[in-house]
Amino acid sequence: MHEFNVWAPGAAKMAVKIGDALHPMTGPDHAGWWKAAVEEAGSGTDYAFLLDDDPKPYSDPRGLWQPHGVHGPSRVYDHKSFDWSDIHWQGPPLSGAVIYELHIGTFTTAGTFDAAIERLGYLFELGITHIELMPIVEFPGKHGWGYDGVALFAVNDLYGGPDGLKRFVDACHTRGLAVLIDVVYNHFGPVGNYTTKFGPYLTSRHCTPWGDAVNFEDVGSDQVRRFFCDNALMWMRDYHVDGLRLDAVHEFIDRSAIHFMEQLSIEVEILSSMLERRLVLIAESDLNDPRMVKPREAGGYGMDAQWSDDFHHALFTVLHKEDEGRGYYTDFGSFEKLAKALTSVFVYDGIYSRYRSRVHGRPVNGLSGHHFIGFIQNHDQVGNRAIGDRLEHIVGMNRARVASAIALTAPFVPMIFQGEEFAASSPFQYFADHDDPAMAKAVLEGRKREFAAFGWNPAVIPDPEKTETFERSKLNWDEIHEGGHGEMLEWFRQLIRLRRDSPSLNDGDMGHVKVRFDESKRWLIMDRSQIRVMCNLGEAPAELENPGQYPLLLASRDGIEVTEEKVLLPPDSVAILSCEKIEKQGH
Amino acid sequence: MHEFNVWAPGAAKMAVKIGDALHPMTGPDHAGWWKAAVEEAGSGTDYAFLLDDDPKPYSDPRGLWQPHGVHGPSRVYDHKSFDWSDIHWQGPPLSGAVIYELHIGTFTTAGTFDAAIERLGYLFELGITHIELMPIVEFPGKHGWGYDGVALFAVNDLYGGPDGLKRFVDACHTRGLAVLIDVVYNHFGPVGNYTTKFGPYLTSRHCTPWGDAVNFEDVGSDQVRRFFCDNALMWMRDYHVDGLRLDAVHEFIDRSAIHFMEQLSIEVEILSSMLERRLVLIAESDLNDPRMVKPREAGGYGMDAQWSDDFHHALFTVLHKEDEGRGYYTDFGSFEKLAKALTSVFVYDGIYSRYRSRVHGRPVNGLSGHHFIGFIQNHDQVGNRAIGDRLEHIVGMNRARVASAIALTAPFVPMIFQGEEFAASSPFQYFADHDDPAMAKAVLEGRKREFAAFGWNPAVIPDPEKTETFERSKLNWDEIHEGGHGEMLEWFRQLIRLRRDSPSLNDGDMGHVKVRFDESKRWLIMDRSQIRVMCNLGEAPAELENPGQYPLLLASRDGIEVTEEKVLLPPDSVAILSCEKIEKQGH
Repeated sequence: MHEFNVWAPGAAKMAVKIGDALHPMTGPDHAGWWKAAVEEAGSGTDYAFLLDDDPKPYSDPRGLWQPHGVHGPSRVYDHKSFDWSDIHWQGPPLSGAVIYELHIGTFTTAGTFDAAIERLGYLFELGITHIELMPIVEFPGKHGWGYDGVALFAVNDLYGGPDGLKRFVDACHTRGLAVLIDVVYNHFGPVGNYTTKFGPYLTSRHCTPWGDAVNFEDVGSDQVRRFFCDNALMWMRDYHVDGLRLDAVHEFIDRSAIHFMEQLSIEVEILSSMLERRLVLIAESDLNDPRMVKPREAGGYGMDAQWSDDFHHALFTVLHKEDEGRGYYTDFGSFEKLAKALTSVFVYDGIYSRYRSRVHGRPVNGLSGHHFIGFIQNHDQVGNRAIGDRLEHIVGMNRARVASAIALTAPFVPMIFQGEEFAASSPFQYFADHDDPAMAKAVLEGRKREFAAFGWNPAVIPDPEKTETFERSKLNWDEIHEGGHGEMLEWFRQLIRLRRDSPSLNDGDMGHVKVRFDESKRWLIMDRSQIRVMCNLGEAPAELENPGQYPLLLASRDGIEVTEEKVLLPPDSVAILSCEKIEKQGH
Repeated sequence: MHEFNVWAPGAAKMAVKIGDALHPMTGPDHAGWWKAAVEEAGSGTDYAFLLDDDPKPYSDPRGLWQPHGVHGPSRVYDHKSFDWSDIHWQGPPLSGAVIYELHIGTFTTAGTFDAAIERLGYLFELGITHIELMPIVEFPGKHGWGYDGVALFAVNDLYGGPDGLKRFVDACHTRGLAVLIDVVYNHFGPVGNYTTKFGPYLTSRHCTPWGDAVNFEDVGSDQVRRFFCDNALMWMRDYHVDGLRLDAVHEFIDRSAIHFMEQLSIEVEILSSMLERRLVLIAESDLNDPRMVKPREAGGYGMDAQWSDDFHHALFTVLHKEDEGRGYYTDFGSFEKLAKALTSVFVYDGIYSRYRSRVHGRPVNGLSGHHFIGFIQNHDQVGNRAIGDRLEHIVGMNRARVASAIALTAPFVPMIFQGEEFAASSPFQYFADHDDPAMAKAVLEGRKREFAAFGWNPAVIPDPEKTETFERSKLNWDEIHEGGHGEMLEWFRQLIRLRRDSPSLNDGDMGHVKVRFDESKRWLIMDRSQIRVMCNLGEAPAELENPGQYPLLLASRDGIEVTEEKVLLPPDSVAILSCEKIEKQGH
């Protein structure tokens, strides 16, 4: 016996379709829900819903499994069937985290949860604490980044379905790794979204880059908010996930007295108390608004952290001048901006943005750096480039080593992107399989147009719909022991060990971050209490003072010399020094 | 010589047109502004702008005077020409205010600022502290409520133009009365709005009841925000106005890290410090969100107060059962709701609203009642009824007296609507002169449809465009000494005197408000420290205990008896008692 439930406030009649049998549902109740208990249904039963007189069966908006894809029926899945072994797991704190973002489909050749499990030992030894999965819900077609998911409660069957995710999370926890997943609550994908047949999931009062906005504030929004809150709680409760990364929260348009994000953070806090596990929420926000991460008591939304895009843009534009005037890079491109990002988080904290043609942001005054995630590579920053080329492809190995040193010693919680740690040769390109020729054509044309505006030859833009584009983006794990790749991996190991072992790199106190730089000579020194990071991105060697006679902890390349008086940095190099008192004989 | 300035960021060329002469402008500067100094122009010069190759001249979006109406040229006006006599004016605090809302066009027969001045002595003697003017900017046609204004910097010429408003404000201040004006920053009127020729004042990203939303967050929004902030500051600085009522702020759609309202409250605070005068901002908000009036330090927008619509609806629906199920009245209609409004401000403070089909609001926890404006009549609540009938026309004099007693002893800052104090016989109907036959027809048809849905005969709905509708809405001041009108006026005088003389009615502490009621017998007792308000809206007399032996202060009608044991209240009556200790011989 299984009881089916679905929210369809406007329907006059509803039925569950199982095989050829129709089971009428009763409803709607006061909140718009319909239900039907079906004797012969149970775990594994495929089903769909029939609405009113529409002959077409639709999958369950909250279906847990879509083994026939987004257009097919849903399958009943019983959460109780899995045997968890992570009973005492509580999860490491975000403040000490080193996050590793990965995409299940390209992280391994097989592209499944089970294949990814084989790499967990490697990640743990690298010093990773949290794995962040790019969206793992059901999307149309055979490959995709996942941001066009439409069955938001169903674990993608290509990756291994519900049981696959559980095996993965369980294996992570067994190895001491926390799992975050990326969830998209700002839109549904353009193909295969049948939720709007059931209720007012969207509203035409506001327009987003994907069309009508999700209905967080209009008629019927209580149940739409429940849909997304319940989705969030499901991952944490039923899949033992440790936290969520919320995609593009600036497209949540909600004037309610209790903003959706505040409601979500309240509900997640309650669940955290009940599960006795640490649960975190991380927002991707383009608003430069500290309200995201401020405590609710202070009028904030109570997110644990948000991505720190200004830091990325400021760092990237001093590494790679060429892109300086493009898109949002217009607003960056100096050591001064990078210094501001390192000390103030938001570079745009109430100042005019040329890119946006308006004033942007407000200061984070007094917030910990641990409320912000810092990175120099992520799926967007690599994958949204025309050909998905990685940092070291663009600026070379030496400069990429400087970048990673800054990212891993910055006051933010660091995040790296799959393959970044060994300077993977494979790109991470934009791929999608919309399963719809018109949509596929529109996406490719759109990308060609977009990048042509930046001077790219349209012919080199990979076709997102082609299997090769997906395959090309898979990591080649044979590389990790080879030459430059192996050396980069060792560099990351050292940086992460330093990060995790140094109290100074873990205090999150923005007031302790002191930065000096020379804009024309292109060197920068960041002090974080007892750690000094000195880097030279100039074309000439930089000879800097060392009055404290600080000893070297890490050097990114040959030719770095640290004496009691001087630090000599060749071009594209970084030296990390200890500022602790030392004995004369110590070096 | 006069320097013309205008923001037109997208224009390729601009000129000022004076008579037949064209004076080219220079620009745009970095912010999109154009300017031209014209030797022969000065105070009184009529001018318009020419944009690019458009042959049609357009009035100045920031024009100060439109003596030829909204479609004609603007006239240069020199603020320095007026001789102010209110030099030491600082303004009374809002916490002790009794606000009087009036519409210049109908407050007197002449419908001008100068005619209104003649009534100021009367208002002062009534005990009014603040006059709130319905919008006084230029709108199309010969009469209107003012919410469809389009020249938002120009004082309506029908009312007396810029000098007329100054004479009025100066006269108010001389008599000790503060002046608030109602400003509409959520849309421009549908006829005669030429601002969009000049720049992106609107954005199609969000949709409001009036169409595209004002652009508070998109490209170019800095200057749009400046337009509205400068407008606000102008009234306070150049017209000596003491504060603003912001119309329907829930239609400001702004995801910026610093919300427009927060920016405005910062700028008004600065001006207040510099002018050494008290300046207040009052929001009309439909969000039931305490963020509006919370201090900015606590994550609020820093408004001084907001309208308390829930209190109105809760009170109105116990006075008039008939409208209970209509529109937003669906959500009200019990003494329990009224008691909640009196003790908690928001009845909908996070509970489900049937009218809205969703959960609404959040609690005001700990905020003073003085952050909320309470009323039983205002321009909307009277004028948006089908025939604009006033409370006493609907529920009778006795019940209207009970209503005013509750409004004037409630913990909110009380506001009354012109004529309410003498139970004016004239209605306040919806009138507008759109100067556009298609628009006029659409408005009338819309109103007929709207009210037909509530069972009204469309034939009785007044035509907003007809002069008679406007004329009918004018107050008849001859009434104030006549019978029931004079008695009502005396009742208001007594209530206002009590309000202003009683410390208990001025503490704003919601924690001091205690309410008991009997839903079936329809009596309610509100205690505010040393004042007890006892009212009976039942059909039978109510005999209530008087264990404290409290003496009577005010009785709304004959037949109220207060003894040492009992308070006897006939139907539709209210008694106000003093809870101070009294001597036996005191009564």
